[in-house]
Amino acid sequence: MPFSSQLIERAIDAFAGLPGIGRKTALRLVLHLLKQEPAVTERLAEALLAMRTRIRECRVCHNFSDEELCRICSDPRRDHTLVCVVESIRDLMAIEDTGQYRGAYHVLGGVISPMEGIGPDRLHIASLVRRVAEGTVKEVIMAVSPTIEGETTIYYLSQQLAPYTVLISTIARGVAFGGQLEYADEITLARSISARLPYSK
Amino acid sequence: MPFSSQLIERAIDAFAGLPGIGRKTALRLVLHLLKQEPAVTERLAEALLAMRTRIRECRVCHNFSDEELCRICSDPRRDHTLVCVVESIRDLMAIEDTGQYRGAYHVLGGVISPMEGIGPDRLHIASLVRRVAEGTVKEVIMAVSPTIEGETTIYYLSQQLAPYTVLISTIARGVAFGGQLEYADEITLARSISARLPYSK
Repeated sequence: MPFSSQLIERAIDAFAGLPGIGRKTALRLVLHLLKQEPAVTERLAEALLAMRTRIRECRVCHNFSDEELCRICSDPRRDHTLVCVVESIRDLMAIEDTGQYRGAYHVLGGVISPMEGIGPDRLHIASLVRRVAEGTVKEVIMAVSPTIEGETTIYYLSQQLAPYTVLISTIARGVAFGGQLEYADEITLARSISARLPYSK
Repeated sequence: MPFSSQLIERAIDAFAGLPGIGRKTALRLVLHLLKQEPAVTERLAEALLAMRTRIRECRVCHNFSDEELCRICSDPRRDHTLVCVVESIRDLMAIEDTGQYRGAYHVLGGVISPMEGIGPDRLHIASLVRRVAEGTVKEVIMAVSPTIEGETTIYYLSQQLAPYTVLISTIARGVAFGGQLEYADEITLARSISARLPYSK
């Protein structure tokens, strides 16, 4: 699409670099911004910059956070004796969306996958073990996608946590085997957490 | 979607304020940016800010422009004796996309619509008349959408340009009556310009 402005071309290129946004959509977004007051574009740019440069990782659970501790870890109304282990922040958000879970989280940052060269040291496993070793955690819920890699990860974690007196449970298999956790509907996901089972090797 | 970061919430809100972007898509874009280097977000923000704050309107044709004259008006290889009148920059871009038209443009900024209170004074009509009065323009092509308002606008323009020795033509009706010009396919649009007809009242 040959356009007569370098400024617009660059803005289209920048938008079209985002996933799921083609050049036609990018153009529509640019024309929309040009129709609005400059303040609208300024707010968008400022919000994105602030988000990207100021965001941190929660010291305890590895969730995205504005402060040293994320909103969940610093919330006294949540049950911090209950820790739900998830692969990604996306999964954390999917569980939060159910509105049913009132415990804390631990974001692994992936699952063990020898095929992709992802060993336990690449994941936030050591920090989970330290957290459990501190003694306040009573139960660890494995809310990892029910795939081969997920099962391997759960098995590995259960071994690492074996020395501690902590209950290990897995979410109920409402989520289809091989299914992606983040695409499960809210009811299924909520039920699979409330009907969780003690983990048996 | 209750999220544990104010920074992320604000970025999602800003994205979701754009047309066709819902909160799920906004979240996906935000998570994408968080996965990339901060430089990616900085480039996006900078491109949008530069575009919105530095863009101008071409002094001659009212196209978006980086300079006083847009790339088309300042291109010596284009035929400046031929002026294609369009409602919007979107329509200009649709015609440019055909790659068939080598003349100049004039962006009206809309069509006459008494129902919506848009009179001729709200459109870039005076500047078109001045342009024609200067004497270099030999032909004005009315590439306005074939709607009632479009026809009214063409009629009004033809009256305003009547004192001058300029050929007035309309694009061939390859575009369906009542159809939106910007959604016409490139072949139809290119043909409707090349097979344009002298305008008869």
